[in-house]
Amino acid sequence: MKIVALAGGVGGAKMADGLAQALPAEDLTVIVNTGDDFEHLGLKICPDLDTVCYTLAGLANPVTGWGRVDETWKVIQNLEKLGGPTWFQLGDSDLSTHLERTRRIRAGQTLSQITYDFCKAWEVKPTVLPVSNDLIQTMVLTRGGALNFQEYFVHQQCQPVVTGFRFLGVEKAKPAPGVLEAIEMAGSVILCPSNPWVSIDPILAVPGVRETLSAKRVVAVSPIIAGKTVKGPAAKMFAELDIQPSAAAVAAHYGSRPGGGLLTGFVMDVLDSNLAIQVEEIGILPIITDTWMHTPTDRLRLAKEILEFGKMK
Amino acid sequence: MKIVALAGGVGGAKMADGLAQALPAEDLTVIVNTGDDFEHLGLKICPDLDTVCYTLAGLANPVTGWGRVDETWKVIQNLEKLGGPTWFQLGDSDLSTHLERTRRIRAGQTLSQITYDFCKAWEVKPTVLPVSNDLIQTMVLTRGGALNFQEYFVHQQCQPVVTGFRFLGVEKAKPAPGVLEAIEMAGSVILCPSNPWVSIDPILAVPGVRETLSAKRVVAVSPIIAGKTVKGPAAKMFAELDIQPSAAAVAAHYGSRPGGGLLTGFVMDVLDSNLAIQVEEIGILPIITDTWMHTPTDRLRLAKEILEFGKMK
Repeated sequence: MKIVALAGGVGGAKMADGLAQALPAEDLTVIVNTGDDFEHLGLKICPDLDTVCYTLAGLANPVTGWGRVDETWKVIQNLEKLGGPTWFQLGDSDLSTHLERTRRIRAGQTLSQITYDFCKAWEVKPTVLPVSNDLIQTMVLTRGGALNFQEYFVHQQCQPVVTGFRFLGVEKAKPAPGVLEAIEMAGSVILCPSNPWVSIDPILAVPGVRETLSAKRVVAVSPIIAGKTVKGPAAKMFAELDIQPSAAAVAAHYGSRPGGGLLTGFVMDVLDSNLAIQVEEIGILPIITDTWMHTPTDRLRLAKEILEFGKMK
Repeated sequence: MKIVALAGGVGGAKMADGLAQALPAEDLTVIVNTGDDFEHLGLKICPDLDTVCYTLAGLANPVTGWGRVDETWKVIQNLEKLGGPTWFQLGDSDLSTHLERTRRIRAGQTLSQITYDFCKAWEVKPTVLPVSNDLIQTMVLTRGGALNFQEYFVHQQCQPVVTGFRFLGVEKAKPAPGVLEAIEMAGSVILCPSNPWVSIDPILAVPGVRETLSAKRVVAVSPIIAGKTVKGPAAKMFAELDIQPSAAAVAAHYGSRPGGGLLTGFVMDVLDSNLAIQVEEIGILPIITDTWMHTPTDRLRLAKEILEFGKMK
């Protein structure tokens, strides 16, 4: 059975890695958010794509979850001496990815082609697709004004109070080659435990994606456990948007199939068992398990459980 | 007495360093060739400026003469894995220079401003000026066609047979702020032992430079010793242009003041003493000394000798 995972960020990368461990490579396609992509120091940087690819390649930093393992920081240290911007941490190995991607983009290659070639070079076996080759720019609307995602996330460290989101360019963005086809071919689609607002929603907003998903078994994995996010600002965003952050709120955010939403199933942590009834009430099948992914083995176990559920339903 | 040095490449950087050791910082201005500047990996790279600045800062690689001391190669090693271009060697520390310069150029700063700031950061005390803030592109005309300088020099390793040179954009290039003023204030101008064809000639071709030099004492240091260049393709270029490569040929290339050329004096190696008569015959005073700069102490000794000569004449 073919599986598609929608992913962004560290939680998405971990889940994708669990699925990659559990499945034959030809059965897994990971569709990655590109709304976080931005230009910095003249380089095209795709944080979510890189995090997913580095993780699947075994090149990710196991401590931070982003960036590269055995990284060095010679470039940025010297950049700092010259008064250059250092708020976005660029390791030396990581930088080569951005340099070569930027060179290829300028030479007319698409992000899809580049991602394909990079995955080959890094020996990433599953298919990794950027959701679109067209520019999508996630803007975080805050009380202080609209901010580019990395400006909000890294530079201002998620401090500004969020009032909403915009995905600039998404209306005109075409799904990258293979994206809709992979979803059509999939037996199940898994929304990874990524930030719903800024990692999964931009993917869903690309014209054609939501419509194609509506015919599929779609299972989301909650990025919120016991009211808190494992990593990142998802819970903070829910709260600032006047929604009590919880696994149930995530399920409600995506919506149930009967309610015109996306989900047929929802994977939530054992710590949130008490919320299962709420999820069931809106028409989504709750799947309760240990969703923490502390180790690569945890990722595999969780992936297997989700896949087992997929087979049953 | 104020001194101006025109420089490009490793020989130019060594001579500039000798002068910097010999003179109070406020008395030395180094005007650097920018015709070798090019774009690579989307970055603005200024090889001659960097070589001069790194050398004056004590940051240059003492073995190669170019690039940085204690350099690492993490970025380019990872770039190679991605199939990126590796013919132009970019060390990690060196790369930070190009990244930050490119960022500032895009932000609207001039090369002069950037060079001033970088020199401050690197604690380079003498004044270092790019000859122009406008783009000048040295093209090496070869039997196989016109090549961008770095394509000829690095990528094709000076193999193509040279038929001439063009400095694209030079007619419209304005001297950078301070360039003509420094020459006007100078007691002596020294043409460093750089390649006459591709390091010094582009500087001389910037409108106003040659005219301003014509009122000054101008001394060139031969980059050719016993018919060979210490480093680089200058001798090969002379030969391919049907000129016997020699110190005398360099002197004739710049020309004598009575002959409508540039030079009042010419520093040549003791190995070329037999050519002194030829230099004298065309109206240039020959200065014979040991011109090899193996060590920083050699640079200082040579600089002192040239400056002594300048005081006498």
